[in-house]
Amino acid sequence: MVQARVGVIGYGVVGAATAGLFDNPAIYDPPKGYEDPTVLADCDVIFMAVPVPTVLGKNDLTIVHEVLETITPILRPDQIIAMRSTVLPGTVRALQEQYPGVRFASNPEFLRAHRAFDDARHPYRVVIGADEPGIAERVADVYRAVLDPDVEFVLTDTRTAEMIKYAANTFLALKISFMHEVWDACQILGIDYAVVKRGLELDPRIGDGEANEELTVQPDRLGFDDECLPKDLAAFTSFLQNELGLPATLFDATATVNAGMLSRRLVAG
Amino acid sequence: MVQARVGVIGYGVVGAATAGLFDNPAIYDPPKGYEDPTVLADCDVIFMAVPVPTVLGKNDLTIVHEVLETITPILRPDQIIAMRSTVLPGTVRALQEQYPGVRFASNPEFLRAHRAFDDARHPYRVVIGADEPGIAERVADVYRAVLDPDVEFVLTDTRTAEMIKYAANTFLALKISFMHEVWDACQILGIDYAVVKRGLELDPRIGDGEANEELTVQPDRLGFDDECLPKDLAAFTSFLQNELGLPATLFDATATVNAGMLSRRLVAG
Repeated sequence: MVQARVGVIGYGVVGAATAGLFDNPAIYDPPKGYEDPTVLADCDVIFMAVPVPTVLGKNDLTIVHEVLETITPILRPDQIIAMRSTVLPGTVRALQEQYPGVRFASNPEFLRAHRAFDDARHPYRVVIGADEPGIAERVADVYRAVLDPDVEFVLTDTRTAEMIKYAANTFLALKISFMHEVWDACQILGIDYAVVKRGLELDPRIGDGEANEELTVQPDRLGFDDECLPKDLAAFTSFLQNELGLPATLFDATATVNAGMLSRRLVAG
Repeated sequence: MVQARVGVIGYGVVGAATAGLFDNPAIYDPPKGYEDPTVLADCDVIFMAVPVPTVLGKNDLTIVHEVLETITPILRPDQIIAMRSTVLPGTVRALQEQYPGVRFASNPEFLRAHRAFDDARHPYRVVIGADEPGIAERVADVYRAVLDPDVEFVLTDTRTAEMIKYAANTFLALKISFMHEVWDACQILGIDYAVVKRGLELDPRIGDGEANEELTVQPDRLGFDDECLPKDLAAFTSFLQNELGLPATLFDATATVNAGMLSRRLVAG
């Protein structure tokens, strides 16, 4: 299969791991020295992996808009911008309305920072959402040309793709917090947590052994403070509570447990 | 391998599924017509699968004690009673102290009620806890004679085995509640939950497709009200809060979400 011409905006962990899948990808990331947006002009699919921080529980799309205002004058109408940055359900649809000359897709990343290249090469699944016919398939074809044939694709609309990403990360945050509560109980009882972990991970409904770093608790580094989970948990919780009017009881409780664990980390020095 | 002589006390779902693994097991369950305790006299391992309800957050061991008082005069000292009923960490150790003439093991069941025989035949893992040397191995040998050779065994002490059981069931309750919160958000947004479910279950950290009935939400039957999950969640939450002095934040939140879902079921009629 002939590879499509691929562009990548944002050459951080996600952008670099995505770019690494393809031959000669065009890169645009001014702060990192890739300053020429015209390299994107002949790309079929452009993956957007710029930072979208969470501020007061909302996605801060400042960089997304800056980039789009720079590049939209250059783009052809048949090019696709596939959003890899994590954004709340409805965001890509709103971008589509604001930039009607651009074709958007949602293509959330599920990369672990410390093994992003390997995760990009061997994904558990590829999720692609689009709201017009044919677009999701075109993005999928770009991946199919470079991934193992047994990788499963979930092709859907943009909001569903965005929902899958937040639900997945919130679930992982929940799972980590849950295991911390079990670990805490084991500490008090003098029970070997490693054996409990083994007993749980053998149940595929809790997680298989290979993939289950979430079941590991690091007593000298309680809770999670990586770049994704606290941010995504906060944004998704705020979205459910403030946009949808739902209590988000479990998500709130997850943040409570994590805050407690992080403060114990501080006390422990 | 010569099969050990096996006895089963309590011929409900768990007892019957356990008994079904073995040739000619001895059964003792007076309410079901198996009224002769002396059939247990020549058994090497006796699986105890009697009801242990949760009352005010504690295990009600009334039936366990009734049975033990009936059968201990009959038992030989080298016989093992393997507790399949779900009991809180420390329970089997306390029984051991109360009935010093009996050898106890903890052997929690992980059977789904609607497929208990199949789960017993093809377990995700077999967990056996004992506090004296050799006992867990003897129970394991009884299973090894009848199960596939690739089944993994977790041999540990009684409290760890009991902890694995409660942690597993509480995790499943949490997962069901989490998926209900995601489902709720999907309903408001008009997102197809089945696609979200597929996107999540393809991640083995959330669960593989084959085993993951927990990701299914039945809109006409919200929440969980089966025999195990509400009972085990309540007992484990109470144990953490009242025995260990832990907040059990996530477990409490799980019960809150489930109570809300069950009340919506009532409103829906």
